[in-house]
Amino acid sequence: MKKKACKEVGIDSFGFDYPEDVTQEELLAKVAELNADPKVHGILVQLPLPSHIVENAVTSAVHPDKDVDGLHPVNCAKLVTAQTHGGSVKMNWKELSSIPFHIACTPQGCIELLDRSGVDIEGKRAVIIGRSNLVGMPVSLLLNHRNATITIVHSRTADAKSVVQEADIVVAAVGRAHMVKADWLKEGAVVIDVGINSVDAPDTKKGYRLVGDVDFKECEGKCSKITPVPGGVGPMTIAMLLRNTVNSAKRVAGI
Amino acid sequence: MKKKACKEVGIDSFGFDYPEDVTQEELLAKVAELNADPKVHGILVQLPLPSHIVENAVTSAVHPDKDVDGLHPVNCAKLVTAQTHGGSVKMNWKELSSIPFHIACTPQGCIELLDRSGVDIEGKRAVIIGRSNLVGMPVSLLLNHRNATITIVHSRTADAKSVVQEADIVVAAVGRAHMVKADWLKEGAVVIDVGINSVDAPDTKKGYRLVGDVDFKECEGKCSKITPVPGGVGPMTIAMLLRNTVNSAKRVAGI
Repeated sequence: MKKKACKEVGIDSFGFDYPEDVTQEELLAKVAELNADPKVHGILVQLPLPSHIVENAVTSAVHPDKDVDGLHPVNCAKLVTAQTHGGSVKMNWKELSSIPFHIACTPQGCIELLDRSGVDIEGKRAVIIGRSNLVGMPVSLLLNHRNATITIVHSRTADAKSVVQEADIVVAAVGRAHMVKADWLKEGAVVIDVGINSVDAPDTKKGYRLVGDVDFKECEGKCSKITPVPGGVGPMTIAMLLRNTVNSAKRVAGI
Repeated sequence: MKKKACKEVGIDSFGFDYPEDVTQEELLAKVAELNADPKVHGILVQLPLPSHIVENAVTSAVHPDKDVDGLHPVNCAKLVTAQTHGGSVKMNWKELSSIPFHIACTPQGCIELLDRSGVDIEGKRAVIIGRSNLVGMPVSLLLNHRNATITIVHSRTADAKSVVQEADIVVAAVGRAHMVKADWLKEGAVVIDVGINSVDAPDTKKGYRLVGDVDFKECEGKCSKITPVPGGVGPMTIAMLLRNTVNSAKRVAGI
C-alpha cells in the first residue's frame, strides 16, 4: 500500500526483504548504507522486527533527517522541546509542513484531519485515550502545541468515561474494540478513531472484521464529526509518510 | 548553593566562570574536555547563557550520561518514550533512582516530594499549570508514567480555573504570582508550587519578596498539602541534581 502510494505521487521506493533469521548486523549495515546514500530521503523500518533484534537499536540507527516515520529519539525529543525551550526557534504548528523535523505519521494525520475538516483546536479540551509512543503521546504533544488543553486517559484512569465526557475533541488510540460509547461523549464532540481492532464476524468471508475503539454506529449521531474505521485515519498515515519524505527531499535540496 | 550542597554530601565540584563575551567555541571546548574526563560524572551548564551563544548547542554538547540537568534531547526523548515503546525496557517509575537516564531536577523533585509525603499518585487527576520544557512538560510526563491522569493547562486554556478544580494534584509552574486562588482548588487537593515570582514589597529591606504561583495564605486551609515558596520545591531541585550526579557515578562504576 505504501509502495503504491509512492508510485502514485512520483516517489521512487524500493524495499529490502529479509528472512526471519536476519541478524541485527545485517539490518544495521543496510541502514548505514541508506543513511549514506544521497539519493535516499526517507527510510522506513517496517515493524515489528523479529524478537532476536533490538528494535530500538535499528530504528535509532536511521539518520534523524531520513526518519520519515518520526520515531527516532531526536525527532521525539524535538516534538517535546521545540516550542518552549530557551534558545529554540519558535515553530509554526499551524503549518506542519514547515516543521523542520519529522513528526510521526499517524499523529500528524490526526491533526491534518482536524484542520482539513475545519475543526478549531485552539483552546479546546482534547482528551486522548491511550499513551503509546506511536500515537497517544505524540498526538497529545501536537494538540498541546496547537493550544488545546490536553488530558491523557489510560488503563489506570479512574472513571475514563467521565473524563472523556469533558472533551471537545476525542482521539481514541487505545486498541480496545468499541470502548467509547455514545454516553461517553459530549454532544457535538469531534472524534478521531485511531484504533484498528479485529473482531470475530462469522457471517463474513474472512471470519473477522476491523472496528475502531469507538462504537461508530452508536456515536455517529452524537458527534459533530467522527472518522470511520477502516478508512479514516489509516490513509492519512500513509499520506503523512509521503509528506515527510517529500519535505525531507526539499530540505536537502534547500527548497 | 549547589557547590555548598555538593560539599555537604562529599561530591567534588568545580566551576568555570567566563566573561560575558565568551565565545561559543570556548564553551564547547570546555564541555568536550569535561565529557572526556573520566573523573567527571556530571556537567551543569548554568543558564541563561549570553544572547550571542546558541544555548541549545551548548546544552546538547554535554554527553547525555553526564547531563545531570536532564535537559539533553536524548534524555528528554527517553522520558517520553521509555515506558511504552516496543522493544524498550520497562522502567520502574516508582523508584526514580533506578531510571537509567537523567531526569530533569525540578520535575523529579516534585515527584519525590509527593512520594515522601505519602501522596498516592496512581489513578489521580493531576493538573499541571504551565508547559515549559524545564518543568511543565517533564513533570507531566513523570506523573503520566506514575499513572496519574494528566491535564496540562496553559495561557490558551479556556477557563483554567474550572480545569484546575478537577485536580487531586496541582503542579503550578507558570510563573504568575498568586495566580491560583482558593476557589480554584478542590477541597483536599495536594498542591506543589514551582513558581518563583518577585513581587514589590516596599516594607522589606530588599524592596521585593519571592512568592509562588499559588496564593499560599488563601489556599493553605483548603489543600490537604501545599509546598511553600521559597523553601518547598527549590531545595528538592538541588537534592535531585546531587542524586543524578551520584547515580551517574554509580552507573560508571557499575554499582
